[in-house]
Amino acid sequence: MLGNFCYSNPTKLYFGENALDNLSDELAGYGKNILLVYGEGSIKKNGIYDKIVDILKACGKEIFEDAGVMPNPTVEKLYEGCKRAKEGKVDLILAVGGGSVCDYDNAISVCTYCEEDPWEKYYVRYEEVDKKIIPVGCVLTMVGTGSEMNGGSVITNQAAKQKVGRDFPDSAFPKFAILNSLFTYTIPKYQMVAGFFDIMSHILEQYFCGTDDNTSDYIMEGMLKSLIHSTRIAVKNPTDYEARSNIMWLATWALNTMLEKGKTGDWMVHMIGHSVGGHTNATHGMALSAVSLPYYRYIMPYGLHKFRRYAINVWDVSPEDKTDEEIAREGLDRMEDYMK
Amino acid sequence: MLGNFCYSNPTKLYFGENALDNLSDELAGYGKNILLVYGEGSIKKNGIYDKIVDILKACGKEIFEDAGVMPNPTVEKLYEGCKRAKEGKVDLILAVGGGSVCDYDNAISVCTYCEEDPWEKYYVRYEEVDKKIIPVGCVLTMVGTGSEMNGGSVITNQAAKQKVGRDFPDSAFPKFAILNSLFTYTIPKYQMVAGFFDIMSHILEQYFCGTDDNTSDYIMEGMLKSLIHSTRIAVKNPTDYEARSNIMWLATWALNTMLEKGKTGDWMVHMIGHSVGGHTNATHGMALSAVSLPYYRYIMPYGLHKFRRYAINVWDVSPEDKTDEEIAREGLDRMEDYMK
Repeated sequence: MLGNFCYSNPTKLYFGENALDNLSDELAGYGKNILLVYGEGSIKKNGIYDKIVDILKACGKEIFEDAGVMPNPTVEKLYEGCKRAKEGKVDLILAVGGGSVCDYDNAISVCTYCEEDPWEKYYVRYEEVDKKIIPVGCVLTMVGTGSEMNGGSVITNQAAKQKVGRDFPDSAFPKFAILNSLFTYTIPKYQMVAGFFDIMSHILEQYFCGTDDNTSDYIMEGMLKSLIHSTRIAVKNPTDYEARSNIMWLATWALNTMLEKGKTGDWMVHMIGHSVGGHTNATHGMALSAVSLPYYRYIMPYGLHKFRRYAINVWDVSPEDKTDEEIAREGLDRMEDYMK
Repeated sequence: MLGNFCYSNPTKLYFGENALDNLSDELAGYGKNILLVYGEGSIKKNGIYDKIVDILKACGKEIFEDAGVMPNPTVEKLYEGCKRAKEGKVDLILAVGGGSVCDYDNAISVCTYCEEDPWEKYYVRYEEVDKKIIPVGCVLTMVGTGSEMNGGSVITNQAAKQKVGRDFPDSAFPKFAILNSLFTYTIPKYQMVAGFFDIMSHILEQYFCGTDDNTSDYIMEGMLKSLIHSTRIAVKNPTDYEARSNIMWLATWALNTMLEKGKTGDWMVHMIGHSVGGHTNATHGMALSAVSLPYYRYIMPYGLHKFRRYAINVWDVSPEDKTDEEIAREGLDRMEDYMK
C-alpha cells in the first residue's frame, strides 16, 4: 500500500568522465573557507588530491584539512572534525572519498554547531536537527553507500561498542556530488566487491519489507537485474567504464530515498551488519554479505510470495512444475552462486 | 554508453491521501500574492477549488485568478496569464489541474518578466532563461504528463499551426507538488486512459533510443511492468486507490528527467503527436497512442535487438524456437492487445 510520504532530494549530481570540470562553478556559490575531508591518503597516491587542491586554489579558496577519516568513523574523529570546522569558520565541507568520508561529512555538517555532545543528541537520543547546518559537497571515490545523495551518517562509538546510523533531513544532503567512475578504479578489488554487496543489500532490504507490489518493487527488480549484469562484467574486468559507471549510477538510486517511499523498510540486515561492525570493524559491505543469505533463508517462509517473485523476476527461475517454496529456494541458491 | 550529465531535481513532492495538509506550510515560504491557475472549471464541481481557496484564505493570501486554461494552452492564453501575474505582482503561481495547467504554469513562471515576445524568445528561438522566474507550486488533478516534477512546457500557436514543447531548467521546476490520486477520480475514463498512454509513451521514447543497456533500460522495464499491472486494474476499477496511486507515482518518475540521464532521447512519437495536435487539437495521450504502434513497427528492423529485449522482459514473450524478428513482433502484438 502506497502511504503518505514526502519526497525531496535537492542534491545536484554531476556524472561522467568530465564531472570534476563542474567543481569550480559550484565552489563559486560558497564562501572562502573550505574544509577538505578525506580518508587515509589514497587520494594523494592516485592524484585526485592534487587535482582538487589545484581547483580550490584557482578559485581563491582557503583550505582547512581534515584527513585520516577511517572506514568506520569514530565518535572521537567526529569531535575532532567539528572542532576543525568551527575553528576554520568553514563555508563548505568538501568530502573526497567513499561512503565513510561522505557519511562523516554529513555528520560534521550537522554536529559542528550543536551546543551539546552531538553523539548523545543525534545518535543516542535521535533528536531533530535544529542548529546551523554547514553545506556539504562531495567527490566520490568509492561506490556503494549512496552517501552522495542522502543524509545518512554512521558513527561508531568503540567504547560503547555501538555503530549507529542516522538519516539527517534533506537540508543536510550534499548540495552537489561529483561522480566519475574513473576515480574509483584504484580501490582494491575486495573493496569494490564489498561495495557491490552493499548496493545489493540496500535494494533488497527495501524490496523484502512488509508492503508488496508497489511501483518501487518493479523498479527494484530492474535495478537488481542491472546490478547483476554490470557487476558480473566489472568483476571480470574492473576497468570496464560502462559497467563501473552503471554500477555507480545504480548505487546512487539504491539509497537516495526514492525507492523507500510508500514502503516500510526492513533494514534488519544492516542492523545486524552494524552490530557485527561495532564489534569487529569489518568492512561494511562484507559484513552485510555474510549476514544476508542466512537471514533471507530464515525469513523466506514468512514472505514466500515475495521470494517466489524475486526468484522469477530477478534470477529468471522458471516456475514450471515447482512448488512456491522450490522456486523461492532456487532464487536464493542462484543469489548464493552469484555472490561467490 | 553512460555519458556526462547533470541530474538535479529540486521539486518537493507530497504524496498520498493527506498530501494537501502540507499546503499551508509550503505557502508560508512565499509572499502574499498568489496566482491561482486552473482549467475549465472541473475543480469547482468536485470541490477541490473550495478546499484550496479555504487554505489560501486561512494563510492570509491575496488570490489572483487565472482560469480557463485549455487542454492545449495557446499562446494568446499565455500572454493573458503573464499580464495577470505581472499586474498582481504575484509571489507564487499555484497550478491546480492536470498537465496542461501545470505546463502552462511553468510557461508563465519564466515568461512573465521576459521583456520581448516570449513565444519568439523561448518557443521559436529556444533561448536560455535569463530573467526573473516566479516560483511555482502545483496540485495535480490528472495523471500522465509528469509536469509536477519537471520544467516542461508545451504551447500551441494556432495561427502558426505549431505546438512547441520546451524544457525549462531546474530553477523553473515546481518548488512543491501535491499528489493525491483521489483528486484524479472525477476525470472521465477517456482522459484517464489517455494519461496512461502518455506515461507509457514517455517511458518508451526513452527506452527506444540510440543507446542501449544502461541502468535506465532495466529500470524502465520494471516501470513498464508496473504500469501494465496497475493500469489493467485501474481500467476495470477506476477507484482502486492502490492502482491509481502507483500509476501517479510512476507518471512522475517517467518524466522527471532521471531516466533520460546518460541516454539520448528519441521523442519522435511526441514530435509527430504534437504535429497532429497542432492541426487537430487531439488529446495528447490519444494522439500519442495512435502514432506509437505504427511508428514502432516501422523502426523495429533498425533496433531489432532492443525490440526483442522489450518483448521478453516487458511482455513475457517466450523466446524459444523463434527468430529475433518473431519475438520482437510478438512483443508489439501484445502491446497492441493491451492498448485495445
